[in-house]
This record gives sequence, structure tokens and C-alpha cells, in this order.
Amino acid sequence: MPEYAAPLQELIDAFGRLPGVGPKSAQRIAFHLLAAGPVESQRLSDAIRHAAERMSFCQRCFNLAEGAECPICADATRDVTLLCVVEEPRDVVAIERTREFKGRYHVLGGAIDHLKGIGPEQLRIAELVRRIGDEGVREVILATNPNIEGEMTALYLSKMLEVPGLEDLTVTKLSSGLPVGGDLEYADEMTLGRALEGRRTVERTG
Amino acid sequence: MPEYAAPLQELIDAFGRLPGVGPKSAQRIAFHLLAAGPVESQRLSDAIRHAAERMSFCQRCFNLAEGAECPICADATRDVTLLCVVEEPRDVVAIERTREFKGRYHVLGGAIDHLKGIGPEQLRIAELVRRIGDEGVREVILATNPNIEGEMTALYLSKMLEVPGLEDLTVTKLSSGLPVGGDLEYADEMTLGRALEGRRTVERTG
Repeated sequence: MPEYAAPLQELIDAFGRLPGVGPKSAQRIAFHLLAAGPVESQRLSDAIRHAAERMSFCQRCFNLAEGAECPICADATRDVTLLCVVEEPRDVVAIERTREFKGRYHVLGGAIDHLKGIGPEQLRIAELVRRIGDEGVREVILATNPNIEGEMTALYLSKMLEVPGLEDLTVTKLSSGLPVGGDLEYADEMTLGRALEGRRTVERTG
Repeated sequence: MPEYAAPLQELIDAFGRLPGVGPKSAQRIAFHLLAAGPVESQRLSDAIRHAAERMSFCQRCFNLAEGAECPICADATRDVTLLCVVEEPRDVVAIERTREFKGRYHVLGGAIDHLKGIGPEQLRIAELVRRIGDEGVREVILATNPNIEGEMTALYLSKMLEVPGLEDLTVTKLSSGLPVGGDLEYADEMTLGRALEGRRTVERTG
């Protein structure tokens, strides 16, 4: 006798493929849904189908969009000379939350990761270079993740952008250092090292 | 401008309603699905709908079943005189994994929880009493969870079964004590207290 009936096993497997959902959680979610009744299942199933049908990628920046263009690219008040390069659409959300950035974004669709077989040609780098020329971008902020893959991608991009015709382009990176609200004692050596390296002169008055 | 487009926000909300999925995980899952493409979304949506359509509750024991009867109730080799009462279908799976139990189950559909408004009438207790008479059950094992609600439910059931006509029925409970592989040092006082209370004489030879 198999442990679960086939439709239940398939449901558990489907949830288990989602990021951050282990086998135990997948089982718990599946039992929860079946116990909650068909209306709850229908609601989740519809939300998934609906989102997949309605959401696509912005033709300009590759952020998630409900139409051809994302709300940020469609917003005429954003500064087109400032372009922030991120790995994923969720990074756009993170930066938007700071309310500090008034430019546009370019979503690469990942980072260079040779172990996973992701090279520069799998990322939207050609599109980035084209946009820099077409849109009159003056500063590119490389906001890839502060891990090995992200750093490698930022390094690759900074080399890519050292080409004739882009001499006037400023290329910047997010600063590394201690997280705000963090404890010096608990910071890892890499972070603390970066914080030292990037130290700033404190403005003194009087 | 809302932070997410409506279909994306609805997807995040739908995942956030699942047990053990917090707002951050829900967001991560939603972005993952949209990045993975429509085939992946379709597969998950289909698995949910398919399971909801195909799975129902066993008419006899209220375990999850693909038809009118679950595989355990349909299995003629199981001992019908032994009935194990559990809260949820997932508890059946947990006990089946031990391969120690050869009787049948009765799934209550929860535990008495006055804070959540779940009283005995919301549980399948009338059905349990009927089965005990109809199926010639000789022992009822109360296998509710070892927490306040489960203990209260077990207590309620044991009182319920003290009625004329059921004098010959044996009512038992799972033993409480130290988990196998656990460390005495890390056991909480309640568990250690139960382990002491339920101590057994060690068989000595020679």
C-alpha cells in the first residue's frame, strides 16, 4: 500500500518543489488544504493561475509587470539618467521600500553562477548595454547581491561598461558595511572588514 | 502606486494563508513561481485542483481517501476490534509509519478547543460511539496530541465511553515520556515528570 493516495502525493510533491518548503511543510500544507475544503483549494489554485496569466515581464527593465511596461518605467517622474541594476524583481521591491531611489531599474534575471551553468549570455546584459545608450543613462548603480555570484556579476558588468563611447558613464556599487541596528559583536569578519575598508570621515562642526 | 500589481499581491496573500508560510516566504514563493514560468504555475495549480476534486474523507473513519473508503478500512487483514482515535489524517500517517499498529483508525477532525470555539459536537464523536457498537471494537486507543487540547479531548472521550453497554471496552492512551534519542538534560519538566510517573520495572534475568 503506498503511503499516500496519488493525488495527495502529487500535491505534496508540488508544494515540496517551492523554495523554502521542506517535505514536512509540504505535507502540512497539503493536509491543511484538504481539511480546509474545496473552496480554499480553488482560491489558491485560481490565484496561481490568475497571476501566471496576468503577470509578465516589463519589456524595458524586465521587472514583473501586469502589462507591457512596469509602473516604474511608466512613471514619467522617474529620473531616466539613473539606472539601478539588480538580479531579480524582488530586489526592485526591496530598493523601492527605501524610498531613496528615484531612477529606473534593470533586472538581470539572476547572477553569473558557473556552478549552475548561468553565464553572462543567460542574463539581460545586452539589453542593459543597449538601454544605457538609448536612454541617456549617466550613472549605473550595480546593486547585485553582496555574495560571490553577485560580486562576480558586478565585476563582469563594470568591465563590460569600460568601452569606447561610455567614458562619461559613472558606475557605482552599493556600499558594504554593518547592517543598521546590528551588533558589532555579531558581525562576521567579512562584513566588519568591509565596514573598516569603507569607513568615512565624520563631519565635525565647531 | 501600490507596492505589487494586484494579481501578484493576491498570489502572495494566498500563499501567506497556508500554515507555516510567513509573509516573506509567501513573497519568495510567488516571485519564484512567476520567474519559473507558466508551466510551473500550471503544474502547481493543477495539483491543487486535482487533489481537491479527487480526495475526500473515508465514510467510515474520516481519514483522507481517494474514494468512499480509505485503504486502511478497505484492508480486510486489519484487526477491527482495535480502534485508534486520532485528531487529524496526518496522525494516521505518523502511526502507520511505526508499522506497529494493525487495527483501524477513527479521525476526530480536531480536538476540543474552547478558545477556537471547537466543542465536542464539532468532532466526529457520535460516529465514534456508533462504530464502537457496530464494529465489535474491544479496545479504543486514545492517540490525541499530548498537548492541552488533546489531553482534554482524551479525557472527554474516556468519560463519554463510561456508559452502560460498554463495560467490557478497554480504553488506553499512548504513553508519555522521554522521546527516543533525546537527551534527559534537554527534556522539559512536564515530559520528565510524565516519564517518572510512567516508569516501568526492568525485567532482570539471572
